[in-house]
Amino acid sequence: MFFIVGIGLGDPEDITVKGLKIVQNCDRVYLEAYTSILSCGQESLENFYQRKLILADREMIEQHSDELFAHSIVKDVALLVVGDPFGATTHTDLILRAKEKGIPYQVVHNASIMNAVACCGLQLYSFGETVSIPYWTDSWKPDSFFQKILKNQQMGLHTLCLLDIRVREPTLESLSKKKREYEPPRFMSVSEASQQLMEIIDKNPSEISENSLVVGLARVGHKTQLIVACSIKEMTEQDLGPPLHSLVIPARECHPLETEYLQQFNLVKL
Amino acid sequence: MFFIVGIGLGDPEDITVKGLKIVQNCDRVYLEAYTSILSCGQESLENFYQRKLILADREMIEQHSDELFAHSIVKDVALLVVGDPFGATTHTDLILRAKEKGIPYQVVHNASIMNAVACCGLQLYSFGETVSIPYWTDSWKPDSFFQKILKNQQMGLHTLCLLDIRVREPTLESLSKKKREYEPPRFMSVSEASQQLMEIIDKNPSEISENSLVVGLARVGHKTQLIVACSIKEMTEQDLGPPLHSLVIPARECHPLETEYLQQFNLVKL
Repeated sequence: MFFIVGIGLGDPEDITVKGLKIVQNCDRVYLEAYTSILSCGQESLENFYQRKLILADREMIEQHSDELFAHSIVKDVALLVVGDPFGATTHTDLILRAKEKGIPYQVVHNASIMNAVACCGLQLYSFGETVSIPYWTDSWKPDSFFQKILKNQQMGLHTLCLLDIRVREPTLESLSKKKREYEPPRFMSVSEASQQLMEIIDKNPSEISENSLVVGLARVGHKTQLIVACSIKEMTEQDLGPPLHSLVIPARECHPLETEYLQQFNLVKL
Repeated sequence: MFFIVGIGLGDPEDITVKGLKIVQNCDRVYLEAYTSILSCGQESLENFYQRKLILADREMIEQHSDELFAHSIVKDVALLVVGDPFGATTHTDLILRAKEKGIPYQVVHNASIMNAVACCGLQLYSFGETVSIPYWTDSWKPDSFFQKILKNQQMGLHTLCLLDIRVREPTLESLSKKKREYEPPRFMSVSEASQQLMEIIDKNPSEISENSLVVGLARVGHKTQLIVACSIKEMTEQDLGPPLHSLVIPARECHPLETEYLQQFNLVKL
């Protein structure tokens, strides 16, 4: 049997009771570690679950999933993923492949940023299409996500912006070498995302300006959760601390309850 | 302290370990029972948690929340809600009021249909605004949600339709009496929702016809989970069994991986 278990927002205790039972009874447990960054670290998960986890990186999931499935045919194997199992296309694809091979599977759902984002007080059903903001390089600055944010705003909807993470990215230098070397993990902060937004706004005057309201969220669901509401310009200077970060562009007009809720996160000017 | 704990998709074991610890340590635990229908029943939750729960109905939450807060000042009180705590405006409002009264609170997130809907294979980030389909009466047939579905489709986005539930609704006859009487709980099935959609389509010719693809989901996350993909017309005749049901109107063009995943749920014609 192949189990794919969402471990939620990243605190060891965020796993469901159903998920924990599976983790403790499976013969092998893999931890998927490239579509998200685990806030608490593998070791604290292992201590809490009282068992060893096998790290499954991008190569393993995308190229060597046969190993995962080979074991699933004869034994119980679990793959742990941050958030909900259906949060990343990779996992949906994995389930399809398990199905094709006739391997029985079970999914255990959990919270993900896609629903937990409502902790900022903006109602989930008023969110439009979710966008991803990628890291820019000197020569590659995609900005098509901005049109989606504008469309959502025109329809009176909020936009959740998922911010880029880079885990186990081979260094440019090592691509031509036999032995791959990897860049250190990076995650985009709300400040970096806002800086990229400012560049787009400068070039494409629209209804969204540097004074438009944005909401920065860091470490949602954790004890150190931090939410800040301020203008895009102000957000470029905010340091919300360790990962993960997400940015929300609220609709131009919010429901009174949403506005009231957001006010508690207003940036206190020093 | 006031805890508001999401219990997820409704199976007793869907609570997180963090949530279970809170439930077992609190002085009082309320179960919110009107914004959703609990699939498993209060008793099976009580057996699993090994403690009594106090049922909190609409009147209690909306009119007598002072009782909840009065206890929270001196003791630890938890309110359990199906799905995620921020899934219903009522709960966001409750947290605001706790804050105003200076009562410390903690939120425990969990899966909800708003993210678990992706189990049908349609990617969450390609969903547009979520709509609610209300029960019609002979004289009240609101259909403004249909325009939102059309807008989502025009933007190439899927629509999650939340289907109406009626819990502890006073009977019309008892409204004028001293003693309220309540209608039995009802939940809208994907078949009923599709029948209402057919009526709208008949009156408002658009890109959505009776042959358009819809996906019906029942009891997501449970062992008896059932997903069926077929035309709206065919869905009017499907019986997906006990609650809760949700309906998805996919975008006109899906990603190949989405289409491949959906195919497993294709209605097998008898």
